[in-house]
Amino acid sequence: MIGERGAAGSRTPGTATRGETVPTVPPAETAARRTAVDVTALLERGRTLATPVLRTAVDRLAPPMDTVAAYHFGWIDAQGNPTAGDGGKAVRPALAVLSAEVTGAAPETGVPGAVAVELVHNFSLLHDDLMDGDEQRRHRDTVWKVHGPAQAILVGDALFALANEVLLELGTVEAGRAARRLTTATRALIDGQAQDISYEHRDRVSVEECLEMEGNKTGALLACASSIGAVLGGADDATADALEKYGYHLGLAFQAVDDLLGIWGDPEATGKQTWSDLRQRKKSLPVVAALAAEGPAAARLGELLAADAKSSDFENFSEEEFAARARLIEEAGGRDWTAEEARRQHTIAIEALDAVDMPEQVRARFTALADFVVVRKR
Amino acid sequence: MIGERGAAGSRTPGTATRGETVPTVPPAETAARRTAVDVTALLERGRTLATPVLRTAVDRLAPPMDTVAAYHFGWIDAQGNPTAGDGGKAVRPALAVLSAEVTGAAPETGVPGAVAVELVHNFSLLHDDLMDGDEQRRHRDTVWKVHGPAQAILVGDALFALANEVLLELGTVEAGRAARRLTTATRALIDGQAQDISYEHRDRVSVEECLEMEGNKTGALLACASSIGAVLGGADDATADALEKYGYHLGLAFQAVDDLLGIWGDPEATGKQTWSDLRQRKKSLPVVAALAAEGPAAARLGELLAADAKSSDFENFSEEEFAARARLIEEAGGRDWTAEEARRQHTIAIEALDAVDMPEQVRARFTALADFVVVRKR
Repeated sequence: MIGERGAAGSRTPGTATRGETVPTVPPAETAARRTAVDVTALLERGRTLATPVLRTAVDRLAPPMDTVAAYHFGWIDAQGNPTAGDGGKAVRPALAVLSAEVTGAAPETGVPGAVAVELVHNFSLLHDDLMDGDEQRRHRDTVWKVHGPAQAILVGDALFALANEVLLELGTVEAGRAARRLTTATRALIDGQAQDISYEHRDRVSVEECLEMEGNKTGALLACASSIGAVLGGADDATADALEKYGYHLGLAFQAVDDLLGIWGDPEATGKQTWSDLRQRKKSLPVVAALAAEGPAAARLGELLAADAKSSDFENFSEEEFAARARLIEEAGGRDWTAEEARRQHTIAIEALDAVDMPEQVRARFTALADFVVVRKR
Repeated sequence: MIGERGAAGSRTPGTATRGETVPTVPPAETAARRTAVDVTALLERGRTLATPVLRTAVDRLAPPMDTVAAYHFGWIDAQGNPTAGDGGKAVRPALAVLSAEVTGAAPETGVPGAVAVELVHNFSLLHDDLMDGDEQRRHRDTVWKVHGPAQAILVGDALFALANEVLLELGTVEAGRAARRLTTATRALIDGQAQDISYEHRDRVSVEECLEMEGNKTGALLACASSIGAVLGGADDATADALEKYGYHLGLAFQAVDDLLGIWGDPEATGKQTWSDLRQRKKSLPVVAALAAEGPAAARLGELLAADAKSSDFENFSEEEFAARARLIEEAGGRDWTAEEARRQHTIAIEALDAVDMPEQVRARFTALADFVVVRKR
């Protein structure tokens, strides 16, 4: 599918600068519909509904796991003192409570789903950070760094179990269906992490492989978030599947933007180092798309990255050395290709909503959240 | 409850030798009932029914997780060649399929439950071995040792997710109830591991704390195994709770025997080193019971273990030094106390069955399996 769109190298290098977002070009009527939606309020609603329930669930964990989890969520610091905590973008809870409204149910119906999805997401972060050796997340030391590897494994396991508990204790047929869909998403998440790890040891990863991995790591859980409230509200499988399709492609759009920010993002906004993904030798979309292109920039990039993989001095590379690699990726068309891919996935996501009968206000909100995910700086 | 039974030191030291089992003293009528049951056939039935479904489930994992899991289960060696594999005692699958018969259902009804319980059990082994740094299990290198820590985490996560999937894809109300009980058991399992880790860093652990930890680590999942088939067969909550009580106390009896074998077991039979638990400084039941006793042996043991905890030469201790500690545990009454505890828990387990209306043959089989668990050499 991606291959049909031609080699990335056929595009001219973009001229966008650091931290720029990916503007979508929606049709006029869509744009008009979106202006009616206050996205900030929508995100705030999800956060306000889900966070107290999430905190109550985490409080069920036996010490010291409750404290370790509270640290991970940013509710306390490493010394155990309460913190304000930025809480992240909270797109998933917003989607979960919004999806309940598809069925005409109250947004509250989606809350156990929102909480379960957040628990699974954070289970995967705890384990992935340890597996990947990542020492920082959201400007803070990761759990394994502060509390040790055993606690990162254990609390991750506990959050995963808690996610199922929160759903299954509802005791309804709908909750069983929601738990099943969440389990499928979790298996995809794990598959994606397995692919991510295996790709690290390979010289070349195709664009298709990269998209499959990102679909598993990001698409599957966003798909579940976008449908789980509807499932809890009694939606049929066709409705849930269509909402999952929206979430899955939104996840791919989100990840494409993330991959752009991982190279060209503004460190002030992202909280990551400059050229973050290049420093980690991540085979992200812009990189694999550039390597798949033809022409001198792609060839030169391939040589450089192959040499980098063997270099013992990689850790000491200068800003300029990373900047040179970023320029080659851009010249080979990897940046433009990825921006275009974000727009393409965004469009598929919104079109998936056409298959679902829902109140127009709810549809407008889904659309506005999709725009928010694609047009961002962090 | 344990405290009421008096200080362990009040008993005279036992004279049992290495590898001896814990004989129970069942009433005559129970003994007669048991002779009618072929335990070997019962275990074989559970294994024969569950293993093919377990293997099919594990085959669903994406590479390389399927291979890593197959290695863990003992189906292939580290090079990927098929092995005979001893498969363990298979008490849990036998209990799960047997419990389906409580409701009059076919044993096959319990199979998804048996498979889900085995998946959760093995998820916990994969993660615990890594957290505890254990390099050997069932005479073989552990997964993290062969395939690395990341695969141990990842495949553990995948088995946990698969356990839920196997149940929830049945799509029935009963499966939802079974999944909920399995989740509760899994949370207990995780709590137990958290306690186990925290106790390692403490000088003293009480008998009550040790029993609570063992109830979580061993009792909870055996409780689930003993009831999950019945739940899938449509048993009401009271029946499931009574079967869980049987399994929980059977788990405590099992663990008490395990703790005896961990010190006095025959290495040929257990596959572990001599004085295995003492070498690992495990605060198992015989140790904590001995330390809780009064008298010179308990006092001397306390001094020795406190010094051992600080010793830099512990790794090089001779056979005789461990034997001396084992003798003190026995003299302080820790061995006899633990054997008596195994018998006591075994009795509670069997009495729990009285609350359930079930075919007499099924009851006899539960009783025979309880005897098997307590009277064993490995």
